[in-house]
Amino acid sequence: MSLHVVEQREDGIVVRGAKVMICGVAAANEIFIMPGTGYKEADKNYAVSFVIPRDIENLTIVETRRPSDTREQEEGFDIPVDIGGITQAYLLFEDVFIPKERVFMCGEFAFALKAVMNFIKPYRAAIGGCVAGQGDLMIGAAALMARANGISEKVFREKITQMIINNETTFGMGIAAGALGRKHPSGVWVPDALLSNVNKVHVARLPYDTKRITQDMAGGIAETGCLPSCKDINDPRYGDLLKKYLKANCSGETRAKIARLIEWLTIGAGVPGCMHGGGSPDGAKMMINASSDINHYIELAKRLADIKEDIKVEPRKR
Amino acid sequence: MSLHVVEQREDGIVVRGAKVMICGVAAANEIFIMPGTGYKEADKNYAVSFVIPRDIENLTIVETRRPSDTREQEEGFDIPVDIGGITQAYLLFEDVFIPKERVFMCGEFAFALKAVMNFIKPYRAAIGGCVAGQGDLMIGAAALMARANGISEKVFREKITQMIINNETTFGMGIAAGALGRKHPSGVWVPDALLSNVNKVHVARLPYDTKRITQDMAGGIAETGCLPSCKDINDPRYGDLLKKYLKANCSGETRAKIARLIEWLTIGAGVPGCMHGGGSPDGAKMMINASSDINHYIELAKRLADIKEDIKVEPRKR
Amino acid sequence: MSLHVVEQREDGIVVRGAKVMICGVAAANEIFIMPGTGYKEADKNYAVSFVIPRDIENLTIVETRRPSDTREQEEGFDIPVDIGGITQAYLLFEDVFIPKERVFMCGEFAFALKAVMNFIKPYRAAIGGCVAGQGDLMIGAAALMARANGISEKVFREKITQMIINNETTFGMGIAAGALGRKHPSGVWVPDALLSNVNKVHVARLPYDTKRITQDMAGGIAETGCLPSCKDINDPRYGDLLKKYLKANCSGETRAKIARLIEWLTIGAGVPGCMHGGGSPDGAKMMINASSDINHYIELAKRLADIKEDIKVEPRKR
Amino acid sequence: MSLHVVEQREDGIVVRGAKVMICGVAAANEIFIMPGTGYKEADKNYAVSFVIPRDIENLTIVETRRPSDTREQEEGFDIPVDIGGITQAYLLFEDVFIPKERVFMCGEFAFALKAVMNFIKPYRAAIGGCVAGQGDLMIGAAALMARANGISEKVFREKITQMIINNETTFGMGIAAGALGRKHPSGVWVPDALLSNVNKVHVARLPYDTKRITQDMAGGIAETGCLPSCKDINDPRYGDLLKKYLKANCSGETRAKIARLIEWLTIGAGVPGCMHGGGSPDGAKMMINASSDINHYIELAKRLADIKEDIKVEPRKR
Repeated sequence: MSLHVVEQREDGIVVRGAKVMICGVAAANEIFIMPGTGYKEADKNYAVSFVIPRDIENLTIVETRRPSDTREQEEGFDIPVDIGGITQAYLLFEDVFIPKERVFMCGEFAFALKAVMNFIKPYRAAIGGCVAGQGDLMIGAAALMARANGISEKVFREKITQMIINNETTFGMGIAAGALGRKHPSGVWVPDALLSNVNKVHVARLPYDTKRITQDMAGGIAETGCLPSCKDINDPRYGDLLKKYLKANCSGETRAKIARLIEWLTIGAGVPGCMHGGGSPDGAKMMINASSDINHYIELAKRLADIKEDIKVEPRKR
Repeated sequence: MSLHVVEQREDGIVVRGAKVMICGVAAANEIFIMPGTGYKEADKNYAVSFVIPRDIENLTIVETRRPSDTREQEEGFDIPVDIGGITQAYLLFEDVFIPKERVFMCGEFAFALKAVMNFIKPYRAAIGGCVAGQGDLMIGAAALMARANGISEKVFREKITQMIINNETTFGMGIAAGALGRKHPSGVWVPDALLSNVNKVHVARLPYDTKRITQDMAGGIAETGCLPSCKDINDPRYGDLLKKYLKANCSGETRAKIARLIEWLTIGAGVPGCMHGGGSPDGAKMMINASSDINHYIELAKRLADIKEDIKVEPRKR
Repeated sequence: MSLHVVEQREDGIVVRGAKVMICGVAAANEIFIMPGTGYKEADKNYAVSFVIPRDIENLTIVETRRPSDTREQEEGFDIPVDIGGITQAYLLFEDVFIPKERVFMCGEFAFALKAVMNFIKPYRAAIGGCVAGQGDLMIGAAALMARANGISEKVFREKITQMIINNETTFGMGIAAGALGRKHPSGVWVPDALLSNVNKVHVARLPYDTKRITQDMAGGIAETGCLPSCKDINDPRYGDLLKKYLKANCSGETRAKIARLIEWLTIGAGVPGCMHGGGSPDGAKMMINASSDINHYIELAKRLADIKEDIKVEPRKR
Repeated sequence: MSLHVVEQREDGIVVRGAKVMICGVAAANEIFIMPGTGYKEADKNYAVSFVIPRDIENLTIVETRRPSDTREQEEGFDIPVDIGGITQAYLLFEDVFIPKERVFMCGEFAFALKAVMNFIKPYRAAIGGCVAGQGDLMIGAAALMARANGISEKVFREKITQMIINNETTFGMGIAAGALGRKHPSGVWVPDALLSNVNKVHVARLPYDTKRITQDMAGGIAETGCLPSCKDINDPRYGDLLKKYLKANCSGETRAKIARLIEWLTIGAGVPGCMHGGGSPDGAKMMINASSDINHYIELAKRLADIKEDIKVEPRKR
């Protein structure tokens, strides 16, 4: 079912199969297709990489659903963000023809892992900054809501500091992965594999903590399911009453808009796919292990404690 | 704006104001109104408690919006749970008359805190079991998705164990608060204040961790925004293709249904308001502090280390 | 090497082998010996349980070393606690004769696991209260040090609250395990296995957090290796200078005593063996898994989402 | 009591007071003295910085005590590390004369904060690598102990990965602080203040977690107070018995040495002062707050949600 070559022609290749959960396709002019990994000689038709325009023939793109997505078709502030957004797509290739000059890999199965690794390293370094930016918005939204509730954000200094620490950690680890990277012969700068993958694990943890703190700080109004709809708030019969009761240190409508922003950021359409975007944290942990030599650590310990005996555990026979 | 008495009549009272973010009103026959706290003589009109039928005159109830709530009006499995659900309401009292025999408190401001505390103790003990049940569902959904992805849940033993620990902790702390409670003169059993409030803090943390682990274990398909709509999956033109590519260790449709269940549980309409339900964690922390005598702890330490000197910090003058 | 029966006589048994890391032997009159688990018919000599006086013939007891233990042989406050303490011992049995009437188990290998479980359940419930008491002392010592440093403990409200939460959680989970226990036919009350083992995992985590907060709150003086010796502080040449510079909101000597108490509690001879006392946390996790039926959780999820398909993962063939 | 100038002479200055908890003095030839901060005109005698040889006249240095420090005067492996170690000292200046050419600051109170900040930035960046190195030793020691216990370290993959993540995070954040630093006009490279201080907070948390995991993985033998002394292990009467029972997948003596190494690293003389070394985590949090502009975050949130209303909280009047 994975994408693979079904026909080789003089002027290009024909591919079939699917690429799923692909981010940003709706906003892309060109789509870059990467192979998977773990291929052997027999799988060489799967080692394929190319670039296509989004509207190429025989390609069906199905966009996925996000939480509260239909609100985007409504009027009003229940969807608080007008500009931008996140999309994921399923790309279904039904015998798509790719002209030769757009093909980067076709059958070179031994290089698929390398190609993917060269993609993963910058991706897992860069997502740290991506989620840090989202997290900065959460700090702002939570502090704004605190003010709207009539409480100075200084009361929440400990919580805000923790959010900053979370954001700067994923941002900083990306910088560190870049700083310890090396230049690829092609001229491209490739971040460090170990630090990139450590960052991927942080990205699958810290933003969840930041979201939790955002809801903690913002109070009940910003938590899930605690705000009437924009339509109700503007209802001619009881909308004024709602606005009156929503009013605190700012107008009821502004307070409602901030609450919707926090919903959008923490449990709505604005939540990014931190967990599996750029691969799963379990995959990153495997690479962290693969990047580390346990015997190196053991030798450090033996040297410090002046231990000479060689200690090995025989693998169990089955 | 808080609910208060605006008129005292021979046969009852007239109240005005709002009660917001009230859970379960849609399914209730009778609504029990509690006072707030912190009232003095001048605020005695706010010290009011009574019971009303949901359809009483001059009461307007506005239900709130939850993530993805409009899916409930659609056909198909994008809303995976048919039975039950969670609701929150704003109750707007515009001069509602409450007959005398339905009034429990009216002006006894000195007892408002006590009344609220008698509500908080069982509430904050019991929510531990409530979120533990939700968490058990997450274990089941994540394990089912692992199987659907073709992976034995045994691979995820460490993650499942942590989910069980989270669930059993909030459940267990509720049991402990009950076990250390005491009988109120009225005959009602009132759980321990300290343990109930400690549990409230856990309830505002651990379920967030359980949700994160659920998404971690289930893989990309169950993360936010990674699944086409039910309508697309059943589209006559490309639905079969989607089903084909969604198929793994079970049918594509079943796999999609499990993914929607996880979305519902972790970032959809099924997410309970753990953070501020039953009061905020910061409020609970204040009660934990109030339930604890720092000098008792200090005396323990002084006795153990045989320290005689009395050490005090003068409050700063302003 | 484990303890086992080497001879059966009419009037008793003779045992050989070791029991290691046994707590409290130095203060015990009688020592209760438990078997291990996992025995089969061939191992039945290892299924042995009895009670002996500490000074029985052919038993050698070797006490272990604790951090900073030799300070107990010094004068002065470098060892801040005079009364009580923790000990661990290695018990070496070289053909010890146990009279018949002191033997509880001898060869009944099928009951060894049950016997151990009946020991583990109350033990892992009770250690929660044990480490909570230690943690209460840490709250007191940290608050006292804050005062000695001239800072009101109110500045550290967030940290103290977290310490209370940690302590009350292990205490409360023990209570819960007791409350959900059942009466053994012998008349003994046996706590719940699942909650006891969940508590064991908490005991291997939360006290470490409490110790860290204690050092955080107490400032540099109470951290490892930051205080001159009692001998130096009382040196006729420069002791007065040290006392002068150690003085803050109390005498220099009292401040030094509090610092030593915190060292003793967090990195000295007073640290209890939370990690492996009563068995390892990994062992507890195994029992948590064994106490839980994954299919039960899966059925809950299937019922809620109305999923009929049966999904199984075939175990891999090797 | 803080160090300050008591006399200005033509050829130098005379200083009095103390510098406490100063690391590495025992191994230093020259000692660099920094001022404190927060000085005003009236405090200008405290704004003093200079360099002195360790054996200068009228300076008394008192080394502090560390856990288990007297073991260094014993024979055998109870102190497992022969080379290197950590020291802290109290420096007592009783009218020490500092020649002019060794004085860097003397009365320039307005520059004391700047000077300290220029010290803090590289320090708090660099300690990340320092504790990462310690943490690498813990990985090695724990893996070695696992092998000595007869268990492959692969069983503990999850724990080892977490230790690597902890170590690489403090290491990486230091690198990031360096990478985002700037060149001081003097030519020195000064790391970024925000990331340095974020790292300081990590250094006060993550190594404690790494130590906990080390003890978790190593088993009971490496936990506090669970091993007989080297003297007992070599006792002519029962030493052979102890060695026999300590033997597992390596000799009893080697196993004991590894256990002592882990004690030394996690609860002995080898534990570094992560909490307050280079300043306290609370101080670092203050600097994180000072480095961050909450209004910047708020503006980001307002722009995204298109909120125009200006929301301010008036400071409370007292």
